[in-house]
Amino acid sequence: VLSAGSRLPSSRVLAQDVGVSRGVVSRVYAQLAFEGYIVIRQGSVPTVRAISPVESIGVDREERTRLRYDLRAHLPEVSTFPRRLWLRSVRDSLGQAKDADLSYGDPAGLHELRAEIAKYLSRARGVTVAPEHVVITSGSTHSLSLIARALLRRGSRLMAFENPSHYLLREIAHAAGQEIVAVPVDGEGVIARFPARATAVVVSPAHQFPTGVTLSPERREDLLAWAAETGSLIIEDDYDAEFRYDRAAVGALQGLAPDRVVYMGSTGKTFVPALRLGWAVVPDDLRDDVLRELSLTVLQVSGMDQLAFADFLRRGEFDRHLRHMRDVYRKRRDVLVAALGRALPDMPVRGIAAGLHVVLEMPSHEIAESVRARALAAGVAFETTAQHTFSGYRGPAGLILGFGAVAEPGLEVAARVIARVTEEECAAEPAEESAA
Amino acid sequence: VLSAGSRLPSSRVLAQDVGVSRGVVSRVYAQLAFEGYIVIRQGSVPTVRAISPVESIGVDREERTRLRYDLRAHLPEVSTFPRRLWLRSVRDSLGQAKDADLSYGDPAGLHELRAEIAKYLSRARGVTVAPEHVVITSGSTHSLSLIARALLRRGSRLMAFENPSHYLLREIAHAAGQEIVAVPVDGEGVIARFPARATAVVVSPAHQFPTGVTLSPERREDLLAWAAETGSLIIEDDYDAEFRYDRAAVGALQGLAPDRVVYMGSTGKTFVPALRLGWAVVPDDLRDDVLRELSLTVLQVSGMDQLAFADFLRRGEFDRHLRHMRDVYRKRRDVLVAALGRALPDMPVRGIAAGLHVVLEMPSHEIAESVRARALAAGVAFETTAQHTFSGYRGPAGLILGFGAVAEPGLEVAARVIARVTEEECAAEPAEESAA
Repeated sequence: VLSAGSRLPSSRVLAQDVGVSRGVVSRVYAQLAFEGYIVIRQGSVPTVRAISPVESIGVDREERTRLRYDLRAHLPEVSTFPRRLWLRSVRDSLGQAKDADLSYGDPAGLHELRAEIAKYLSRARGVTVAPEHVVITSGSTHSLSLIARALLRRGSRLMAFENPSHYLLREIAHAAGQEIVAVPVDGEGVIARFPARATAVVVSPAHQFPTGVTLSPERREDLLAWAAETGSLIIEDDYDAEFRYDRAAVGALQGLAPDRVVYMGSTGKTFVPALRLGWAVVPDDLRDDVLRELSLTVLQVSGMDQLAFADFLRRGEFDRHLRHMRDVYRKRRDVLVAALGRALPDMPVRGIAAGLHVVLEMPSHEIAESVRARALAAGVAFETTAQHTFSGYRGPAGLILGFGAVAEPGLEVAARVIARVTEEECAAEPAEESAA
Repeated sequence: VLSAGSRLPSSRVLAQDVGVSRGVVSRVYAQLAFEGYIVIRQGSVPTVRAISPVESIGVDREERTRLRYDLRAHLPEVSTFPRRLWLRSVRDSLGQAKDADLSYGDPAGLHELRAEIAKYLSRARGVTVAPEHVVITSGSTHSLSLIARALLRRGSRLMAFENPSHYLLREIAHAAGQEIVAVPVDGEGVIARFPARATAVVVSPAHQFPTGVTLSPERREDLLAWAAETGSLIIEDDYDAEFRYDRAAVGALQGLAPDRVVYMGSTGKTFVPALRLGWAVVPDDLRDDVLRELSLTVLQVSGMDQLAFADFLRRGEFDRHLRHMRDVYRKRRDVLVAALGRALPDMPVRGIAAGLHVVLEMPSHEIAESVRARALAAGVAFETTAQHTFSGYRGPAGLILGFGAVAEPGLEVAARVIARVTEEECAAEPAEESAA
């Protein structure tokens, strides 16, 4: 209703007008500012922003926007998306496409894309697979939704999830009709201790979300032994394994037990979220059910995107982009870890040198939540470990700090904000021992 | 296993080798030829084809491929897809996209596309709607799947379908957990006679599939009255209403009762199947549940395709393409109807001058099925009414003849093949009265 640039009443005036405390108005204004509806500047009244509230923060906006940094862990950098090279792939692939490629096709996806994905998985992730085992989906959300429904159709209705693990994965499985059960995670990754009824588990072995650990070799063996003995299925969520900064990424589990592992990968974090493309490598006996679910929910994935991405992969541009982003993210991670180390030398930073986030361990979930809320009010957004735990989690508390979408200067500022509110919260609440 | 160009044994030799009748081998070869695996030429042995078996048939292949016409009703012409104009929309929209458009966005779709769809629906289909009510999906399969699951979540678990109606729609709803019940269709469209438990019905008022009739004004009133009285939902599948050849298309039901009708449209038949884009106009009280299902199944629809299609709509190119295709399809329909009239003057052709198919009425389902199987063996593919009926259908039998993907010369040949096998089948079986 209010046009861009409109001046809002000061918090004092509005509090009087509507008869609430000034603190309430301030918190509402802070939330509106964070959501992008208004701009708050010290010493002047808030004004209405001109931009759309759903925009996220690009690097080039940081100068203009006072303290507004989105460190949520799922966000990659999008300003580096190679628009010109992508357009070339769209142009050339569309120019060369057969008419048949523009009509209804194989629900598993374009054969040429599946062949390119198979080659890519072999060189990048140690996954050896025939194109026939690759199913093109619109991302890992889609893959997991299809797998969960296909399992349900086979009478398998209890899925285990790492605790903690991304809450959205559990919501996807639950919406697909699955019951959910927790398996614990420690510094070596998931502990293969499952209830007898569980016939599938979703894991992130290369880079556990959110703890940031890698599944140890012994635990890999435990997990594979459980799957082999019980005939269960391991669903491997390989969401960001392309980004490992200190060594080569560990190979995917899928390569060790192709008939017991469904592998899920996508372009969301490694390339660009708007391109809804992902892939699942599906064992033979589950493939027909997965394709049936795909046909009866979306019929098939966008052929335009598939054609272009096949060309992009074939030219080596995807690998080049990953190498470039590995450099970008490694530097961002180094800057964030160093800034946190300087500002909060007693708070440990957890997680291997990989992916798009680190975890800053906190003395308690209560302090973590207070820090999160106060940092958000100050324009720094991130999630906490507690937001991803369920079912009697007893591990450490933490802040999940994503460095994917914020450039180095912003990470420095964000680290200072986080340090300030953390110190204030720790001073306010007498620190208790963490239940780690 | 066999490489392209490999020569296969003649039907006589293979029949001897494996010890079956020559007729069995001939039927197998005919099926393989139709599926695109082999080429059969009079007077020489079959050879293995070089092309992928999932390819469908483009116009420019007709010369090269002996008698192979795909008259399945869901197939549009893809050779006329304006690749150059589409590429311009990809280029310009990608050039102008904000970084935020490339990141995670609103699950309902890009606002600018929803605004363009709202304008398009208003000018083309008499649907008046705010962009906020439009949900971008990956097509009508996706829309129906989301709606069926959203209804289930609200405890509504019995959906009525027209009898006959496209079998795939019922499979989608069934896979989403809905029970299915039939409502009869006659020459005026669906008869609003529902079991008390049914709280939703899927209808195709502008051009009923497959019968090809339009819902009469009286029946529209009956249907809307039922929905208003019982608080039920009408799901309007507007799959090809853009193609009406004799007059302006009837307006969508949605315009008459926006709070009781979910409207579904898509680009699959009107533009190009490979672009997985559709839209649902969803009443307020169902919107959150539909968006939740969308988020937990595909997260969001491809942003690349959305950006380009918004540009394509804004430039008026979509409307221009529809006008062009209306001419193309009207001519094809005229040719097919005339050819059938000449070759089979006693068999009525049903369906209004619209869409991508007509129905050739048959004396019985048995004759229709024999004609379908024999035409298929001769390289002419189509479906029958019986393939889309369920639950005690008692209406007329027919062949559903699509003219979308086959040019005029092919339609002439196909009509002659259909006429020949129909006459032979009718002569073989003494014609019984149809149960119409």
